[in-house]
Amino acid sequence: MNARATIGVTGLSTMGRNLARNIARHGHTVAVHNRTTARMTSLLDDHGDEGDFVGSESIEDFVASIEKPRAIIVMVKAGDPTDAVIDELVPLLDEDDIVVDAGNAHFVDTIRREKALSEKGIHFVGMGVSGGEVGALEGPSIMVGGSDHAYARLAPVVESIAAQVDGTPCCAHLGPDGAGHFVKMVHNGIEYADMQLIAESYDLLRGILGTEPAQIAEVFREWNGGDLESFLIEMTADVLAHTDTATGRPFVDVVDDAAEQKGTGRWTVQSALDLGVPITGIAEATFARSLSGHTDQRAAARTTFGVRPAVDAAHATDAEGTTDAEHAVGHDGLGHGSADDTADDRAEDTAEHTAEKRGGSGEFDPDAFTDDVRAALYASKVVAYAQGFDQLAAGSEEHGWDLDLGTVATIWRGGCIIRASFLDRIREVYADEPDLTTLLTAEYFSDAVSRGVDAWRRVVTAAVQSGIPSPAFSSSLAYFDGLRSERLPAALIQVLRDNFGAHTYRRVDREGTFHTNWAGDRAETTAE
Amino acid sequence: MNARATIGVTGLSTMGRNLARNIARHGHTVAVHNRTTARMTSLLDDHGDEGDFVGSESIEDFVASIEKPRAIIVMVKAGDPTDAVIDELVPLLDEDDIVVDAGNAHFVDTIRREKALSEKGIHFVGMGVSGGEVGALEGPSIMVGGSDHAYARLAPVVESIAAQVDGTPCCAHLGPDGAGHFVKMVHNGIEYADMQLIAESYDLLRGILGTEPAQIAEVFREWNGGDLESFLIEMTADVLAHTDTATGRPFVDVVDDAAEQKGTGRWTVQSALDLGVPITGIAEATFARSLSGHTDQRAAARTTFGVRPAVDAAHATDAEGTTDAEHAVGHDGLGHGSADDTADDRAEDTAEHTAEKRGGSGEFDPDAFTDDVRAALYASKVVAYAQGFDQLAAGSEEHGWDLDLGTVATIWRGGCIIRASFLDRIREVYADEPDLTTLLTAEYFSDAVSRGVDAWRRVVTAAVQSGIPSPAFSSSLAYFDGLRSERLPAALIQVLRDNFGAHTYRRVDREGTFHTNWAGDRAETTAE
Repeated sequence: MNARATIGVTGLSTMGRNLARNIARHGHTVAVHNRTTARMTSLLDDHGDEGDFVGSESIEDFVASIEKPRAIIVMVKAGDPTDAVIDELVPLLDEDDIVVDAGNAHFVDTIRREKALSEKGIHFVGMGVSGGEVGALEGPSIMVGGSDHAYARLAPVVESIAAQVDGTPCCAHLGPDGAGHFVKMVHNGIEYADMQLIAESYDLLRGILGTEPAQIAEVFREWNGGDLESFLIEMTADVLAHTDTATGRPFVDVVDDAAEQKGTGRWTVQSALDLGVPITGIAEATFARSLSGHTDQRAAARTTFGVRPAVDAAHATDAEGTTDAEHAVGHDGLGHGSADDTADDRAEDTAEHTAEKRGGSGEFDPDAFTDDVRAALYASKVVAYAQGFDQLAAGSEEHGWDLDLGTVATIWRGGCIIRASFLDRIREVYADEPDLTTLLTAEYFSDAVSRGVDAWRRVVTAAVQSGIPSPAFSSSLAYFDGLRSERLPAALIQVLRDNFGAHTYRRVDREGTFHTNWAGDRAETTAE
Repeated sequence: MNARATIGVTGLSTMGRNLARNIARHGHTVAVHNRTTARMTSLLDDHGDEGDFVGSESIEDFVASIEKPRAIIVMVKAGDPTDAVIDELVPLLDEDDIVVDAGNAHFVDTIRREKALSEKGIHFVGMGVSGGEVGALEGPSIMVGGSDHAYARLAPVVESIAAQVDGTPCCAHLGPDGAGHFVKMVHNGIEYADMQLIAESYDLLRGILGTEPAQIAEVFREWNGGDLESFLIEMTADVLAHTDTATGRPFVDVVDDAAEQKGTGRWTVQSALDLGVPITGIAEATFARSLSGHTDQRAAARTTFGVRPAVDAAHATDAEGTTDAEHAVGHDGLGHGSADDTADDRAEDTAEHTAEKRGGSGEFDPDAFTDDVRAALYASKVVAYAQGFDQLAAGSEEHGWDLDLGTVATIWRGGCIIRASFLDRIREVYADEPDLTTLLTAEYFSDAVSRGVDAWRRVVTAAVQSGIPSPAFSSSLAYFDGLRSERLPAALIQVLRDNFGAHTYRRVDREGTFHTNWAGDRAETTAE
């Protein structure tokens, strides 16, 4: 067989298939292979005219069809299937050939595989690809880890197929071994937080204002014209406006409210715990998904406590003399509303409540509350990204990757799920100050947070008083308040730990580590 | 050498030394050994008169001094040191001998070690011991995993040295292999949450009421007389009343406010993520410790945003016409206070604010706010324990341990760090209903939470408005509100995931898994 393909793709499920098409469309000759041949032949049948494909039925022919040093993209399920394909490929490869894992591998596996293959003289590249099916076909964001040799060989192909923003490809060589998959993992963690914050915003607008999804769609569409402009906000506007054909109901209302978390969100939080980086926004988002899936516990809690009413069911009373908290959630604080209240009544009740927060004019302005939610969403988003970028910095330090955070922001501007104009601001911030301590204090973001902090507090207060769960909003605010506190009660925790476990403590006024003899004379000694 | 010892202990740092003394004091002959002989001889010199010790300088003599089948407790650092001691012991042991790891091992390591040793005919026991140094000596809580054979051999010793509550030892055989260390891990996770909730309560009382640690000590002492009665609440009262000898200041004020998290709290959250159990209270507690240690970021945030003032520094304004949020945190929402305000002024300001929440009488009642904090602490604690017990159930299911949750509550009533009368309530709840879906809905706890929920909302609102970080309080409340929501915005997340990633969704009105062709005609198809 004539080795004429520039690059190969094995694993032609939707993602692999679309990547191969994207490569062919950009003028590269692409070898294609799939364990089950039918997928390969259907790709050629359906899309063979889009570019230059070289199809092979056997893995041997596939490998032989690629120019040396060979570059082979593996796009199969993460875990054992990836190892199986690698094991099959390796005996067929020559020194300096390159195996690219474009799946959602855990970066620890990528580090392991890179080590094993480099001992055989083969370059292993962990390549994070974000953008879903459409991105794979039309231009994803590509996060590459591995050797310089490998990237030099891959660059002409991967940079051409990536999304382009302002003439710059959303693709970069981020560092050795696991760097690419680590960055992709954190990307997905941030994606969890982004979606949770959007979901909480929607839930608050609906719950407090009593507006329908189609109206909320308009709000998101408007937000997308400002500094929240992003793929996910735009998509939210789009899906909230969608009506279910079968029932005529808002589509979001016919979809089961149990979300899944079994992948990269979980890994991101686990890694952050190892690195000692508090990524509370991503953690709350991940746990919120877990919670949603515990349908048995949810049913038990609803039976016991009464539901926090859905928007068109029951809602708060407006009896005279209720307290502020009662005002929003009913006299027992549990959100039992009287069934004969109308949604308008409720909106008005909440209106008065919110008006109090806004200066006591007594008149409720739904637009003002909507603006508050926008500001809270933006501020919480800044926190989530600040936490995610902290994790990138800590991972880079731990693994010696020398990640350039500005480059990460640059290649996330397009192609990927969290793409947003926001990321261009982050790029600028790191261009100005590569060793920034936290994104939160960069002028652009600190100004935005400072402007929005009152609104943020009003929104979390409204959520707390009305019983609408906003774990990501409230956790992000607690993080912000924690970070800027002069003194944290962590001091008390240190004292308790020294008391029951002799864990020792430091003092504010002297260097050293100390222990107090709590069980005895309470004398303080210097610990080693 | 005459094999006359009932049991052996190798590793005589404080914990091992105290365990050995505890064993000897209970009339058992105990063999003792330490890599560095000096620790063994000093134990005999200092405490040899407390019981029957058999000291050995060599590991061979140590093993030979124990009755067959031998039972040997290893109390060394978790990780490699534990493996090193096991490797040294195994060649000296006979079939049916028992190696007990009483250190803080990760349960996954315990599963691995149990498997390896059982192949050699040796029983490996992972034994969680809680209670710190004092507990080890005077009666810890002991969580045992391993074979029935091993427990039968160990029971007379370990049940005698454990704490006793109502005549029942705080020691039980919980299940095979990793069960004991898993339960100990979750215990420590709950301990993280308990301490964070206590810390937040202290911080709120101090920040909102402006009271001094010694006064807050009295509050905790009073709380300890009610349903919050526990080792940690009692200890908190004790340490808050302590004055630093060197400076004459409240001791808690001279201790550095950077807490550590490098152990079992982190493992607990990582395991919960794998199990899909939302343990938000423990996660926020763990991350709050991480945050406290990021001193560079904290300094940057304080410089940029202005500090949330320490109690004796600066505080909120009381100018006319401020909004509710401004009222508590200053006009810019960032907590810049005027330096000439006095703590009394602030207490009064907050008083008015809180009074509004409490019915508008205009008169502030610090006692009422203190009661609110107590209720919030109790409700949040119920959430933390409900989450922890969920994790126990999920871990048991995953690993086939058949854990009895009532037994776990029983042996946590005494000896361990989280010991509390609260755990006797949990024991009763599981005795009534072993397959309870969530602790939250057990009558005793649901009544308490229902009674406290208004107070809980007031306290979180006060924290949010005054800028005092209360991540565990607010996260626990969000969990509660999430669990009892009729509909969660997770539905929107599922729609977004189906749109960008073809992740599919379920419907509320029909069985099956569905996908909408978002990029095309928006027709809905059934996914496999």
